[in-house]
Amino acid sequence: MTPSSTPAVAQLSLGQLAERLGAELYGPAERRVARVATLARADAASLCFFADRRYLADLRGTGAAGVILAEKDRAHCPVATLVTADPYLAYARAAALLHPPAEVTGGAHPSAVVAPGARVDPSAWIGAAAVVEEGAEIGPRVFIGPGSVVGAGCRIGADSRLVARVTLCDGCWVGERVLIHPGAVIGREGFGFARDGERWVRIPQLGRVRLEDDVEIGANTTVDRGALEDTVIEHGAKLDNLIQIGHNCRIGAHTAMAACSGISGSTRIGRSCTIGGAVGMAGHLEIGDNVHFTGMAMVTRSFAEPGLYSSGIPAMPSAEWRRTIARLRHLDELARRVKQLEQRVEPEHDKLGQKSD
Amino acid sequence: MTPSSTPAVAQLSLGQLAERLGAELYGPAERRVARVATLARADAASLCFFADRRYLADLRGTGAAGVILAEKDRAHCPVATLVTADPYLAYARAAALLHPPAEVTGGAHPSAVVAPGARVDPSAWIGAAAVVEEGAEIGPRVFIGPGSVVGAGCRIGADSRLVARVTLCDGCWVGERVLIHPGAVIGREGFGFARDGERWVRIPQLGRVRLEDDVEIGANTTVDRGALEDTVIEHGAKLDNLIQIGHNCRIGAHTAMAACSGISGSTRIGRSCTIGGAVGMAGHLEIGDNVHFTGMAMVTRSFAEPGLYSSGIPAMPSAEWRRTIARLRHLDELARRVKQLEQRVEPEHDKLGQKSD
Amino acid sequence: MTPSSTPAVAQLSLGQLAERLGAELYGPAERRVARVATLARADAASLCFFADRRYLADLRGTGAAGVILAEKDRAHCPVATLVTADPYLAYARAAALLHPPAEVTGGAHPSAVVAPGARVDPSAWIGAAAVVEEGAEIGPRVFIGPGSVVGAGCRIGADSRLVARVTLCDGCWVGERVLIHPGAVIGREGFGFARDGERWVRIPQLGRVRLEDDVEIGANTTVDRGALEDTVIEHGAKLDNLIQIGHNCRIGAHTAMAACSGISGSTRIGRSCTIGGAVGMAGHLEIGDNVHFTGMAMVTRSFAEPGLYSSGIPAMPSAEWRRTIARLRHLDELARRVKQLEQRVEPEHDKLGQKSD
Repeated sequence: MTPSSTPAVAQLSLGQLAERLGAELYGPAERRVARVATLARADAASLCFFADRRYLADLRGTGAAGVILAEKDRAHCPVATLVTADPYLAYARAAALLHPPAEVTGGAHPSAVVAPGARVDPSAWIGAAAVVEEGAEIGPRVFIGPGSVVGAGCRIGADSRLVARVTLCDGCWVGERVLIHPGAVIGREGFGFARDGERWVRIPQLGRVRLEDDVEIGANTTVDRGALEDTVIEHGAKLDNLIQIGHNCRIGAHTAMAACSGISGSTRIGRSCTIGGAVGMAGHLEIGDNVHFTGMAMVTRSFAEPGLYSSGIPAMPSAEWRRTIARLRHLDELARRVKQLEQRVEPEHDKLGQKSD
Repeated sequence: MTPSSTPAVAQLSLGQLAERLGAELYGPAERRVARVATLARADAASLCFFADRRYLADLRGTGAAGVILAEKDRAHCPVATLVTADPYLAYARAAALLHPPAEVTGGAHPSAVVAPGARVDPSAWIGAAAVVEEGAEIGPRVFIGPGSVVGAGCRIGADSRLVARVTLCDGCWVGERVLIHPGAVIGREGFGFARDGERWVRIPQLGRVRLEDDVEIGANTTVDRGALEDTVIEHGAKLDNLIQIGHNCRIGAHTAMAACSGISGSTRIGRSCTIGGAVGMAGHLEIGDNVHFTGMAMVTRSFAEPGLYSSGIPAMPSAEWRRTIARLRHLDELARRVKQLEQRVEPEHDKLGQKSD
Repeated sequence: MTPSSTPAVAQLSLGQLAERLGAELYGPAERRVARVATLARADAASLCFFADRRYLADLRGTGAAGVILAEKDRAHCPVATLVTADPYLAYARAAALLHPPAEVTGGAHPSAVVAPGARVDPSAWIGAAAVVEEGAEIGPRVFIGPGSVVGAGCRIGADSRLVARVTLCDGCWVGERVLIHPGAVIGREGFGFARDGERWVRIPQLGRVRLEDDVEIGANTTVDRGALEDTVIEHGAKLDNLIQIGHNCRIGAHTAMAACSGISGSTRIGRSCTIGGAVGMAGHLEIGDNVHFTGMAMVTRSFAEPGLYSSGIPAMPSAEWRRTIARLRHLDELARRVKQLEQRVEPEHDKLGQKSD
């Protein structure tokens, strides 16, 4: 069900690869490669990349057919090289060429449950024990993995893939080439309540979730539907595992979020941001474009300006941490004591100042 | 499968709504509304609410049929008003009247697997690819969504709803009107081990989970069964997505927990608490009634007194953060330096004190 | 589906238990017990343990058939005792003897979907609505719970148990006696992308996940497959719920991780570590053996030395927290002011020093 893990089906020559990658080849154009590998484990049918000087010894001893690298590193490589300005990006493309996702075969597993009123493109696949409800619309070459549930009235665009056991709640909208990993829940009714004395009264959540083209949603990640309007993940945004996106959020195009982060309702994140792992954001914030947060940052206010933001205390030996925290709890008092000291020392200041000038 | 997302089926007149909400109507009683909407997007069949002055321009320009608001705001509204002391609560009720959950139709999908010894009320629905194991007892109008698993000996009270792909492990007890969102896992064996040299020996987890009436459990949230006695979520408590509740915990009535929080084993949280997102609590704590924690709080001790508690460092530009953390790691030393300064300055103190008096 | 929650099927005499546990029995060897219970709730067929002095009153008043405890506590117990050096470990074993997991019956539920090319041991069970794909290999007495998906080419060793709704992605390798709880996702393609201008280009993830013998994976936990080589959870490691393990990580033997933690890609954790709840670790770190982190620790660098490490600010009343944070943001300035004070006071230092000597 995770097609890129299937054995490589493609074989390409170094010459073909150089052409497709726009790389300069130093070595035999007809030499064929079948797979990508690490420098240390490569065999004569493997393609590698080199971008990190820590692996220089591996590069020098590699048995690969060829290595993608930058011009400056070429002299260290004992085998054929594909020279390019961005070896990591070229490697990503080469790996995708050598290990393409399996083709989707149209049809449905006999155990799949497809409602009579669902419209499924003949080139789409509905997997074993998957459920597609009334009025759902499944586009060309869509892959609905085993055990997935596609709610009533959902719309899934061409070439999208629900790997396995994905839940898409009623009425959600998925663009093209969207990849949703197992256990993800898209479009659950958001956490909206009004207080009635001690009781909580649920507020119907009437918006949808919209996942635009080329979005990726990680395993067991949850994206809640909007209260009145939609929760939107814009095109090209990539979400890792175990992320929570609250109702009415908007995540900007090409923004990437690492695992375990939680974004409270109605927060908007701009374009091309990166959000480290386990970042928490309060609700109703506005985060601009090109804003970056390091892991575990606690985001309690809006940040409009591009830049890198952080918080949190890095781990230290526990005894040291206990002393630090004890001091921290008296920091207010410490600051007041410093102020008193300054006031006491102040009269001496002019004299001392003269001395030191 | 998420019934409130279905198109509105109810139509009510402003007069009927005013009566049901206990609101005072200024406007035509016979005017009919079909849905709720935002002030900005409302049409002539929409009902809105106004409670936040930031939306005053939207209120003034709204095309809604009617607006729920407080008496003090009535003058700003160009259309019919339903005046009430708590517009947000009245809105919640109106939205539920206009967008009621779909009625549950009794029966089972042909692909559902119901064990012969399970007792299912004829008015309950067992969805596609759902599994109900031996001895389970499913009450009136219960909705078991597609792909859900109800373990052996579970008991689910009237009008409860497992939206889709919920796991209820063996022997768990669910009250009435409980709502469980997709991917939630109720009653997994808790994380209990004894150490045997280097190895961990699993301790059988023999308690259950009890979800009392009107509880709500979010998507992909996990509630572990007790070791010997039960883990209990008391009536009316609301849990958001991706929350972990450890074995033997008790979450008090009407307590609300935001997403991504984790409560370690045997901790008890009182009644009417609110727990912000990504809060972590150590085990064996006692949290009193009406205790509130802000998001990402790190709770390492019991809090008996009502009140608002917090921790964590809000995000700041990374360069500033690095300086701050460097200083923090020397806070103990700084405090000692201040003490030394005080001792040195002390002899001067009386004199300076006399001066300033 | 969670067999240990089934009613006790075993009955053992105190004499048999003493022999199996290597405990010294003070009391009637023929007395039979049927279950474990708390001291407070035990009846004449219950076995208890005592290890925490807070429960001394319960011990003194217990109605149990027998109590497992240490020699020093024996005098306080009114009933038969099984004396052992480690009562908690002996209790874990006794509980497992009295509440054994249900035997696995070989076969497959009629609703299970098993690919023709899968090899399933006749003693293994494939549950309702479960899916086993092509080339998967399922060992003796393996339990594949309802709604689980076992991807193509997976290999599962003897006596392992996928409780319910587990996803095992293609090609993953599971050892013997591995326990995987509901909703866990093993082997999703890791979060690996190269940047192409503003766009992210996915890097095929060609490694697998290997779960060695006696590993346990909690509910809704996600373990990503490696990019080129495998992500490995070594034998006897125990992972709680809602944990994220990034691609290429290695978690050492007998290491235990509490819920909600997230480990970024390529980090290696040593043997016999304990990781508290909601700990976050950056990528590419090396954590040694016997390293312990308290809950919510933020791990941004490698720790080679055994020991206990911590970070984070414990929750406090919010007003106090706000003052503390305000001071913290001026800590750099405060430290500079202290330095200035020291410079001003310095000339006085010799004199004062003489005084105080």
